[in-house]
Amino acid sequence: MMNAQSATAAQTTPEQRAVEDDLVARVVASFDDTADPRLRQVMQALVRHLHALIREVRLTEQEWTAAIEFLTSCGNITDGKRQEFILLSDVLGASMQTIAVNNQAYANVTEATVFGPFFVDDAPRIPLGGDIAGGAPGEPCWVEGTVTDTDGNPVPGARIEVWEADEDGLYDVQYRDGRVSGRAHLFTDEDGAYRFWGLTPTPYPIPHDGPVGALLARAGRSPMRASHLHFMVTAEDLRTLVTHIFVADDALLDSDTVFGVKQSLVKDFTRQAPGVPAPDGRDLGDRTWSRARFDIVLAPASTRRPEGPRHQG
Amino acid sequence: MMNAQSATAAQTTPEQRAVEDDLVARVVASFDDTADPRLRQVMQALVRHLHALIREVRLTEQEWTAAIEFLTSCGNITDGKRQEFILLSDVLGASMQTIAVNNQAYANVTEATVFGPFFVDDAPRIPLGGDIAGGAPGEPCWVEGTVTDTDGNPVPGARIEVWEADEDGLYDVQYRDGRVSGRAHLFTDEDGAYRFWGLTPTPYPIPHDGPVGALLARAGRSPMRASHLHFMVTAEDLRTLVTHIFVADDALLDSDTVFGVKQSLVKDFTRQAPGVPAPDGRDLGDRTWSRARFDIVLAPASTRRPEGPRHQG
Repeated sequence: MMNAQSATAAQTTPEQRAVEDDLVARVVASFDDTADPRLRQVMQALVRHLHALIREVRLTEQEWTAAIEFLTSCGNITDGKRQEFILLSDVLGASMQTIAVNNQAYANVTEATVFGPFFVDDAPRIPLGGDIAGGAPGEPCWVEGTVTDTDGNPVPGARIEVWEADEDGLYDVQYRDGRVSGRAHLFTDEDGAYRFWGLTPTPYPIPHDGPVGALLARAGRSPMRASHLHFMVTAEDLRTLVTHIFVADDALLDSDTVFGVKQSLVKDFTRQAPGVPAPDGRDLGDRTWSRARFDIVLAPASTRRPEGPRHQG
Repeated sequence: MMNAQSATAAQTTPEQRAVEDDLVARVVASFDDTADPRLRQVMQALVRHLHALIREVRLTEQEWTAAIEFLTSCGNITDGKRQEFILLSDVLGASMQTIAVNNQAYANVTEATVFGPFFVDDAPRIPLGGDIAGGAPGEPCWVEGTVTDTDGNPVPGARIEVWEADEDGLYDVQYRDGRVSGRAHLFTDEDGAYRFWGLTPTPYPIPHDGPVGALLARAGRSPMRASHLHFMVTAEDLRTLVTHIFVADDALLDSDTVFGVKQSLVKDFTRQAPGVPAPDGRDLGDRTWSRARFDIVLAPASTRRPEGPRHQG
């Protein structure tokens, strides 16, 4: 791209502004006959904002071409296990803004954050106190907490999906060898309590060998995500929660490349010396381990926006 | 997508607006260290407009997912000969707005319009008066005119690229059998004049068997383009012109699906009865033919924007 730009919207003539305004109006009007009123609303707003961007920056034709090529490259690298368009949405903060719009603060409800591209639908079930690691390498981590409603009533039978990267910073699906590890689902007990073994979260980069990684490099931005453990919690008559917990004192908390960190989601992962007895009597030999607590409060389903809060991806 | 939408930006609380504003500010700031100041400007503007769109329409998470899937589908269908992202830009008027921004009116200069996805770089050269059809079916059409500068001085040796669909509405590259037809380049003579045989332009749909076609269908929009003949004209010290000419009285002039029509580019293609002598004495037997005149005025190169006006696609 160029290093100097003289023309700006402010320097255009009234005649030129009229030409550009007229084009916007015609494109907006072309969606007037859209049968679905919501689709019409979204497309007409998209047209207005897209044209406002082009006009504000006085986009050059070479830059337009570069944008087409960038999107084409994102398409080329995307397949069933790599989703460059989600990464793009994530690093532009669009994913997190969508989360923000759909999960407004409500009473003491646990905050949501980005879903990310690594959830899979059919993770194995483990019993309470079971281990999600599935052989993934990393330091053992005991995680426990409760699921309640906003009045503090326990929620028995809530389904908790958890997933995380291994200590090498990779999710199982990134190995492409069919392994299933670092993910599972479990259910709260009659007191709304849950507990499981996972791995102490470690920082990792988003996949950055594609066009989104190249963009981050040109922007001088790190591809690293702050260390985290993913949760998705569903329960009848309550609003589904998609969130992570983050590790207190992680140096990356302020520069998470997908803008996912919220202070309320930062938790102590207390390091335990070798030999300290595990809560469930597990023999950890001479290894260190850690423990964290995450008490989850779910909103009433009535606070859900019309289409529901859950990602399909 | 949904058919009702209750939440609007106006209904959000001050606290919610602060959360959303803060996120926009953090994403904008993440591009502060971009070395190229123009890339920084464009990306920060992109972030602002993208977030404004999400916030204005209160984009739902299902809609976000649908958008990711739409872009993924565009990527899947795009290859060396099919460019769904250009089609998307075209039907959203983004291509035409980029043309508008980069080709402001200047004196009596011929207006520009969209480049489209069907140009190829190595079209054959024909002599003045030659035929670009290359075997493509359609009614013969004699096209002639001059290339001058804004003072009316003829421009000898200007390179004119012309390309068009055949009477079945298809460009050669859409057949995927390697044919080269309906395209050529030629040069103006010492008087700045040019002439060639082509085909009378006929209307055709943009490729609409992909996600962009599905979007047009949902919007109740026709995929048809008004009948046209493409030109790209280059000459030393003058600004490159990318444009079309359109056929007067074409019923599609007001609904061209890529918003490419400008009144100054609508030309009479005068139908000639069988037996009317051709300008160059060509024997057309008992066929009808047509003729059109297109006098082209090029701007000085000094009016070119820094990166130059020519598409690379």
